[in-house]
Amino acid sequence: MTHLATTPEGTAPHRVVIVGCGFGGLFAARALRRAPVQVTVIDRTNHHLFQPLLYQLATGILSSGEIAPPIRDVLRKQRNTRVLLGDVVRIDADRRSLAVRTLGSRWELGYDSLIVAAGAAQSYFGHDEFAAAAPGMKTLDDALEIRARIFGAFELAEREPDPAQRSRLMTFVVIGGGPTGVEMAGQIAELSRRALRHNFRSIDPGDARVVLIDGGDRLLASFPESLQRRTAQDLKRLGVEIHLGVRVTDVDADGVHTSSADPALARIPAAVKVWAAGVQASPLGRSLAEATGAAVDRAGRIQVRDDCTVPGHPEIFVVGDLMALDQLPGVAEVAMQSGMHAARTITRRLRGKAHKPFRYRDLGSMATISRFRAVATFGPLRLSGFPGWLAWLLVHLAFLTGFKNRIATIASWTIAFIGHGRPERAITAHQALRSGTAPTEGARRS
Amino acid sequence: MTHLATTPEGTAPHRVVIVGCGFGGLFAARALRRAPVQVTVIDRTNHHLFQPLLYQLATGILSSGEIAPPIRDVLRKQRNTRVLLGDVVRIDADRRSLAVRTLGSRWELGYDSLIVAAGAAQSYFGHDEFAAAAPGMKTLDDALEIRARIFGAFELAEREPDPAQRSRLMTFVVIGGGPTGVEMAGQIAELSRRALRHNFRSIDPGDARVVLIDGGDRLLASFPESLQRRTAQDLKRLGVEIHLGVRVTDVDADGVHTSSADPALARIPAAVKVWAAGVQASPLGRSLAEATGAAVDRAGRIQVRDDCTVPGHPEIFVVGDLMALDQLPGVAEVAMQSGMHAARTITRRLRGKAHKPFRYRDLGSMATISRFRAVATFGPLRLSGFPGWLAWLLVHLAFLTGFKNRIATIASWTIAFIGHGRPERAITAHQALRSGTAPTEGARRS
Repeated sequence: MTHLATTPEGTAPHRVVIVGCGFGGLFAARALRRAPVQVTVIDRTNHHLFQPLLYQLATGILSSGEIAPPIRDVLRKQRNTRVLLGDVVRIDADRRSLAVRTLGSRWELGYDSLIVAAGAAQSYFGHDEFAAAAPGMKTLDDALEIRARIFGAFELAEREPDPAQRSRLMTFVVIGGGPTGVEMAGQIAELSRRALRHNFRSIDPGDARVVLIDGGDRLLASFPESLQRRTAQDLKRLGVEIHLGVRVTDVDADGVHTSSADPALARIPAAVKVWAAGVQASPLGRSLAEATGAAVDRAGRIQVRDDCTVPGHPEIFVVGDLMALDQLPGVAEVAMQSGMHAARTITRRLRGKAHKPFRYRDLGSMATISRFRAVATFGPLRLSGFPGWLAWLLVHLAFLTGFKNRIATIASWTIAFIGHGRPERAITAHQALRSGTAPTEGARRS
Repeated sequence: MTHLATTPEGTAPHRVVIVGCGFGGLFAARALRRAPVQVTVIDRTNHHLFQPLLYQLATGILSSGEIAPPIRDVLRKQRNTRVLLGDVVRIDADRRSLAVRTLGSRWELGYDSLIVAAGAAQSYFGHDEFAAAAPGMKTLDDALEIRARIFGAFELAEREPDPAQRSRLMTFVVIGGGPTGVEMAGQIAELSRRALRHNFRSIDPGDARVVLIDGGDRLLASFPESLQRRTAQDLKRLGVEIHLGVRVTDVDADGVHTSSADPALARIPAAVKVWAAGVQASPLGRSLAEATGAAVDRAGRIQVRDDCTVPGHPEIFVVGDLMALDQLPGVAEVAMQSGMHAARTITRRLRGKAHKPFRYRDLGSMATISRFRAVATFGPLRLSGFPGWLAWLLVHLAFLTGFKNRIATIASWTIAFIGHGRPERAITAHQALRSGTAPTEGARRS
């Protein structure tokens, strides 16, 4: 039952292993679909995560299936590719082999070419103890946890007699003013002002306080200044409090401590905190650096040559968020293009063609603020408000993986944007317990 | 911000408390929407669970939001009703008050009329230790756990070199031949034969062994015999092994032990086991029995009078799965009708009208077997095959709560039944860890 391409000469096929199936890994695998190679994609989860829409999972708009299709279903028609579930724990560059763990068992996976697309995790800048109180926004688990906390906080507020506690339950602090932080703050404001209307009797969810904090002096630091201003305006109109130049010094279950001199900001009582402030490269980067002697930058990323290969190891490519090259930002577009470049370099080599450096084409960037409002750049073009949102809609639909997900997502967006719903709000007993919003332990089995 | 109806005379409104918001509680609340009463619905979770479709969540067809809309959103337009999250731990019938827990705090909730619709949980017939290996099918948590186990087992089988282990990973045992068991077995067979096609390279998911076991001598014991036969035929055509008159004597991580004399059945190695064999009434029934002296039947249900009230306590109603009356079965239809009867009795009393006993109108029952195949009875009518499935489709769409969920569900069903997809297959790191299909602990944060 193994359908693997062989090279035209009938020799053993060239084995390409791709570690991680985010945007970098997925686009590398797809670019190899007609290549005379045997591709193995290995990932720690069963799904490709469409990270730019994770904030919509966290705020009840989309379901996990809509933003996280199974990798093997996405690649099912690609006969030269197999997908394996496993955690790559070590790279042996000399033997061209990976040490992999699946459950208790440890196994080896050999390669001829290796594409490392292991991505990045949340960084708490040395304060990993913040994670329990302020989950990050990198995985399905993160988003589902945050979703349970947001909707759970309103549930508890409805019955809370103490005004101070009620106001703490209805305060949402988002830390980090990049696209994820802006999108989370905008969506929390919107769901409290619109989607939860008429749902409560003792509280008005529209009273919710949404606070967006960033240590820098601008929101969306990588965007043009005109769009930064517009973003701040639009968020303020939604009722989001923006505090720039404020650093978070501590986060606990009760709230957030900041560097602000203003006593009202120095301590913000808040039940729900979201950490969207920084990323650090996958720990697999360290193992790769040890195995190859490659240099690692401050964020833990591997310094690569201009064709995305590791110095001294032309058979090892690093792409996406784990790659340090020309100050390129850690965005989906860089991951896609570098993944494709690695794949094409492998194909070109097999055909004996010359080396080509990776040239990143910046196709623009975008961030939604609320329904019908987004900011976007395409080359010299700057869009905001409704035109920006339309551009956002079309680009995200185009890049969403799989026809089926597009249909389902259009249905969910219609419900959320034209209607007023947040269709995905069910909190499981497990999530309620973890997020501290379960009535009692007994609710585990109802 | 509290919008609560007052009685026409301007006196304090009559307080109705509804405990539990399954079908019984929800239909009681809705039937009170125009009544001059103040309704409080209290539940341990934030959602109304559409239990008849739980098997579709467990097999990747629907998302949790589609079958579990937030209670407060469903009832948002009902101005005389408020929804509270809490776990009712004790009923004080003399003081007409409930002891409720929410998080650490304990509070009281007084009532004038009480409708107890706390439902039922899975029963392991005294073997609660089976639960870890064979989850039940009663809650969102159950279904999500089973979903992770099913899809996770195929993931592990793809890389399993040992044929015996591979066959264990690809064996699915469903215990219980009622509607839930029949529907689970049919859907697991269908997803392995159709939905996962082309997804794997080392295994053929169509080789999966699906075993349905029941201690009795018939499937769907409450259905007419002709439909029982048709169900068995249709399941066999899908490749489901049916073993009747076989009792499960032990369940563990490795598989199932049965009472069968056949050695091949006495021990069935299987990674995934689903328990759909029995129910027991909510523990709140015991507290109610203690408080009122009401009789409890073997399944823990409260013996009620012919108007669904507790003997000696005309102000306390018990409806749905927790109610024992005239041998009525524990099905959604009984819960809906008894919930409505309790609500109407309260309204009639406030108007000074006479007592009316509860008369159950059996509108029929149904069970799907696979896409395009179901069995259904409506009075003297018996449907099977495609006509049965059409009837199933229309009835379930009609009863699904909320227009938005209907739209989303039609989209998902189109994808699953016309297409071949199982759109909701994403396994979170937490689910993978719990279900034993996580690559490693390290996958918690990827």
